[in-house]
Amino acid sequence: MKRPTMADIARRAGVSKVAVSYALNDRPGVSEATRASIRSIAEELGWRPNSAARALTGGRAQAVGLVVRRPARTLGVEPFFMEFISGVESVLAERSYALMLQMVTDEVQEIEVCRRWWGERRVDGVFLMDLRSEDARVGAVRDIDLPAVAIGPPEVAGGLPAVWSDDGASVHEIVRYLATLGHRRIARVAGPAELAHTAVRDAALAEACREAGVPEALLTHTDYTGEEGARAARALLIAPRRPTAIVFDNDIMAVAAMAVAQELGLSIPADLSVVAWDESPLTQVVRPMLSAVTRDIPAYGARSAAALLALIDGEAVEDIREGYAHFVPRGSTSPPPH
Amino acid sequence: MKRPTMADIARRAGVSKVAVSYALNDRPGVSEATRASIRSIAEELGWRPNSAARALTGGRAQAVGLVVRRPARTLGVEPFFMEFISGVESVLAERSYALMLQMVTDEVQEIEVCRRWWGERRVDGVFLMDLRSEDARVGAVRDIDLPAVAIGPPEVAGGLPAVWSDDGASVHEIVRYLATLGHRRIARVAGPAELAHTAVRDAALAEACREAGVPEALLTHTDYTGEEGARAARALLIAPRRPTAIVFDNDIMAVAAMAVAQELGLSIPADLSVVAWDESPLTQVVRPMLSAVTRDIPAYGARSAAALLALIDGEAVEDIREGYAHFVPRGSTSPPPH
Repeated sequence: MKRPTMADIARRAGVSKVAVSYALNDRPGVSEATRASIRSIAEELGWRPNSAARALTGGRAQAVGLVVRRPARTLGVEPFFMEFISGVESVLAERSYALMLQMVTDEVQEIEVCRRWWGERRVDGVFLMDLRSEDARVGAVRDIDLPAVAIGPPEVAGGLPAVWSDDGASVHEIVRYLATLGHRRIARVAGPAELAHTAVRDAALAEACREAGVPEALLTHTDYTGEEGARAARALLIAPRRPTAIVFDNDIMAVAAMAVAQELGLSIPADLSVVAWDESPLTQVVRPMLSAVTRDIPAYGARSAAALLALIDGEAVEDIREGYAHFVPRGSTSPPPH
Repeated sequence: MKRPTMADIARRAGVSKVAVSYALNDRPGVSEATRASIRSIAEELGWRPNSAARALTGGRAQAVGLVVRRPARTLGVEPFFMEFISGVESVLAERSYALMLQMVTDEVQEIEVCRRWWGERRVDGVFLMDLRSEDARVGAVRDIDLPAVAIGPPEVAGGLPAVWSDDGASVHEIVRYLATLGHRRIARVAGPAELAHTAVRDAALAEACREAGVPEALLTHTDYTGEEGARAARALLIAPRRPTAIVFDNDIMAVAAMAVAQELGLSIPADLSVVAWDESPLTQVVRPMLSAVTRDIPAYGARSAAALLALIDGEAVEDIREGYAHFVPRGSTSPPPH
């Protein structure tokens, strides 16, 4: 059994191919009884409209694209991507849209994939993930009129609709909480400096420390891996005046830091408070459970997909500000040692 | 600037659309100089062959599909999928093939997505992941002649080319290692019983214990989450004669069990040996580092993609047996307590 065609349906129904085409394309020219019979045979044979034919006659590709530029080893560990994608797909599925996924290693490839997908009519739009402070993709997709939604702060989205979470508000909440517990030596082990949301968090950190009346936090940028997270934590903890609280920009680095504290004979939270961002299954299986900021990532993906489909439909799409990630204290934060 | 068409190229080159079509489709009818000039303009404008037109004229979709049926919360934590996909994409990229990804919640949807993709000419083939012992997908893709590669043991692939890792050999290696250390009460906290590779490991476990002359291992099936892994470990460790070694079918469950041991005042590895499967960034950031079985998952993905592309090209594709995952002792295994 090969892919069924209109000819197969015509043969089975004992009608002409033209009649089948009329019936399946909702055109006049066949009786209602014949239309019903043809539809029922089409259903039975598992016939589907040819996406290529639909796309050629001015229709849509019925697919959207996501190009990911991160090493697979960090992608695999952080639940963020898969949770985001699951939210995206919950919305795409309702409209029978497919998701095209490609991993690349640099920005040139990233732009090239978008151009190719669009030129070849493989996608109707794309998500731009991991927005950078200077992001050549923004200009590139605008140049070719490729519908795109930026997942990140509007300041760097260059006029593309942005779906964003107010990371600055989360940073303020964390710092106020730690300062209230009595911490004055706070550090943050951050993601890559070139990511726009890292820059937002960096700026908010300095401001939040000033507002809370604590010395400016120490800041280290990493590539998000456990290795770099552990190295950064170790450097902070063997320094003469070590921090009493460290905030990590993901979950795996926070878990790696727990091991480093153990190496150095430091107890969490008595000697060191640790905060992870975002909360994940990983932050909840370790002991103590990690205090973390938490947000609904599948919902974030779903709203991003809804925005992209609206944009593809030609609707005006505003920036969408997600609720910010709230701090949830678990077992890894307490007042600092005396 | 909209997507450039052959008409745009013709206008710019000062030739007819027919000449452009001849030049770009490698047909005779234009001079070499004109062909070169047309190609250079096409390149400059960023023109691409329309994938829909190519697919309609008997060409390929130039895409393969992967339907994933697992809860996003477990997918996100296990590095396996993203590492596998990164390997797949390294091969697809060379051939300018795209990957379509869809997450579903049950087998009916899974088959429906494959049928739709194939019927609509959206894919040229699919990967069947997480093969189950009774897997309706195998018959379904064969019925519609959809090229498919099974990622799992050949016994359940129903004649589809299978790319598989000899999990039985890994189980034997782990059990021999633990028995040699002196363990006689071994348990395994496994993945879902309905997955074919879980069944392979289950059968090998009983056989390996017999061969090693140790009592048959206790076996608990879970859904791969940290919660169920922790619950299974807790039940084992509060039983009258608790195991001295537990093997976990993924990384997050093994990490969760470390927390459970800590709750119960048990020291790893002095009181309890722990083995994880597969090794991952996660198994290496915890202390002690987890003894684990390890394999090259991106290479597994790459070979699976090469097999699928060969199948699509009409080549005869044999089952491919991957090297098996080897046991690597880190810090979580030692002789049992006296």
